[in-house]
Amino acid sequence: MKKLRRSARLVEITYQLISQPHTLFPLAHFAERYESAKSSISEDLAIIKETFEAEGIGQLKTLAGAAGGVKYIPLMDKKIMESFLQEICHSLEKPERILPGGYLYMSDILGNPAILNRIGKIFASVFVDQGAEFILTVETKGIPLAYATAQYLQIPVVIVRRDNRVTEGSVVSINYISGSSKRIQTMSLARRALVEGAKVLIIDDFMKAGGTIKGIMDLLQEFDADVVGTGVFVEAEQAEERLVEGYVSLAQLKSVDVKDKLIKVVPGNLFH
Amino acid sequence: MKKLRRSARLVEITYQLISQPHTLFPLAHFAERYESAKSSISEDLAIIKETFEAEGIGQLKTLAGAAGGVKYIPLMDKKIMESFLQEICHSLEKPERILPGGYLYMSDILGNPAILNRIGKIFASVFVDQGAEFILTVETKGIPLAYATAQYLQIPVVIVRRDNRVTEGSVVSINYISGSSKRIQTMSLARRALVEGAKVLIIDDFMKAGGTIKGIMDLLQEFDADVVGTGVFVEAEQAEERLVEGYVSLAQLKSVDVKDKLIKVVPGNLFH
Repeated sequence: MKKLRRSARLVEITYQLISQPHTLFPLAHFAERYESAKSSISEDLAIIKETFEAEGIGQLKTLAGAAGGVKYIPLMDKKIMESFLQEICHSLEKPERILPGGYLYMSDILGNPAILNRIGKIFASVFVDQGAEFILTVETKGIPLAYATAQYLQIPVVIVRRDNRVTEGSVVSINYISGSSKRIQTMSLARRALVEGAKVLIIDDFMKAGGTIKGIMDLLQEFDADVVGTGVFVEAEQAEERLVEGYVSLAQLKSVDVKDKLIKVVPGNLFH
Repeated sequence: MKKLRRSARLVEITYQLISQPHTLFPLAHFAERYESAKSSISEDLAIIKETFEAEGIGQLKTLAGAAGGVKYIPLMDKKIMESFLQEICHSLEKPERILPGGYLYMSDILGNPAILNRIGKIFASVFVDQGAEFILTVETKGIPLAYATAQYLQIPVVIVRRDNRVTEGSVVSINYISGSSKRIQTMSLARRALVEGAKVLIIDDFMKAGGTIKGIMDLLQEFDADVVGTGVFVEAEQAEERLVEGYVSLAQLKSVDVKDKLIKVVPGNLFH
C-alpha cells in the first residue's frame, strides 16, 4: 500500500469502517497500511468520529491498550428513525395493499434494498446492547429483514425452515399451533446451525397472535439458546392475548377495512 | 446542516455514496448541504474518485450537465475477487460439509453477512452493464444472495415461492420438472411483483441440471420479462446436458466422494 495523504486516508478508512461494522481495527492496521504514524491515524479517526456522531451515522468506539483499536457501531439517529417510520406507515396505508382475507401486500417494501437497509439499521440500533450472537428468522419474508439487520450487527443469520425437505443434515423439528389460524404447522432447524447456549435475536416480518414466534422460542429451547430480543416489522392489533411478550415492532397495523379500503398503521413500540 | 470542513465533508460524502450505490447525487445536493461552493465539492469528489479507484472500491461516475451529478458504482477489484473465490473454494472443500445424499452444507456461508456482501459485490460487478431492473430468486437459500447483490445494484428483489399458500394476491404458477430429481414441482410469482417487460437478473445458490432456473425462465415468460443474466453461487459438475446456458457461477463443485470424504471445488465461470 502506498503512502496516502490525509484526505485519501479519510476516504478509505471511512469505507473500511462502514463496510465492516462491529469489527475491531487495531490502529497499527491502518498505520502499517498507510505507512503513517499512529498519531496521524488517531487524528484521522478523531475527525471520522466527530463526523459520524454529528451526522447521525453512528458511533466510533475506541478501545485503548495493546488489544485496542477502533470499531464502527451503526446507530440510527432518533429523528431520522421517527421520520422514516412515519414514511413507512404512510406507505403501508395505501389502499391498493389490501389483499383478500385482509392481508397486506408488503413484498415491494421487503424487496427494496434502500428501505431494508434502514429497517436493518433500526433493529441494529435497538438491539445493539443485547449481545446477540445469531439472528434467527423463519422463511420466507423474514429473511431479508434478518440479513439487513445482520449486516449492521455483523453476526450470522440462521433460517428456520417450514418443511422437512431440508438438505441440511439432521434437523430438530417441532409442531406448533399457529396463533391466528389455529392450524398445526411444522418448523425445523438444522442441528449444526446453532451452537448450544447461543444468544439469539429473533427477527420476523409480521406478528399477529405470535404463534410463529412462540414456536421459534420452543424450538430454540431444544438448542438451549438464550433469546435476547425479538423484533418484528409489523404487528397486527388484535383482541386476544398475545403469546409473546417483550418484543419490538416498527409499525402497528391498527385496522384494515376491506369494504371501504381503509388501512390504519401507526409507528410501533420501539423500546418495549 | 452546518458548514463542514473538507475533512468532515470527505467522510460524510464517502458515507452517503457508499450507502446508496447507483444513486445520482447532484453536485448542488452536496453544495447546499455543506454550504460550500460547487468547485470545492468537485475537488472533494476528485479525491474520493481517485481513492475509490486506487483502492479497488469501485468507480465514481460523473455525469455532466443540468441533470448531472455523481454516483458510486461498486466494482470489485479482479485480484481481490480471485483471492476471495479461492478462499470460498477452500472453505467449501471442508469434509464436514458432506451431507447424506452427497449434498454440501453451505448455510454457514450463506448466513455470514461479510461473505454475502463480497459475493453480492462480485455479482454486481459482473452484471453491472446488463441494465437489470429486478433481481429474481427462488426461496429459500437464494434469498440472501439476491439481497446482497441488490444492495450493490440498488434494484429490488422479487422472490419466487415454491408453494401456493401465498398471501400476495393473484399469483402466476407453473409446474416444472426438477432437472436432477425428475419430480414435478410448483413455483409461483405474485402478479404484481413484476412490471411487464421488466429486465431481470436471476440469482440462485446452487445449480445442478438447471431445472429450477429453467422453471424460473418459463415463469418469467408469463410476465414478458427479459432475462439479462443468471448468476449462481455454486454449480455442480454433471454428465448430462444442462437445461440452461450462459450463466455465471462463482464456484464449480467438481466431485463429492462421500466414502473418502473428499470434495473438489474450483472457481467458477465468472464471464460466460
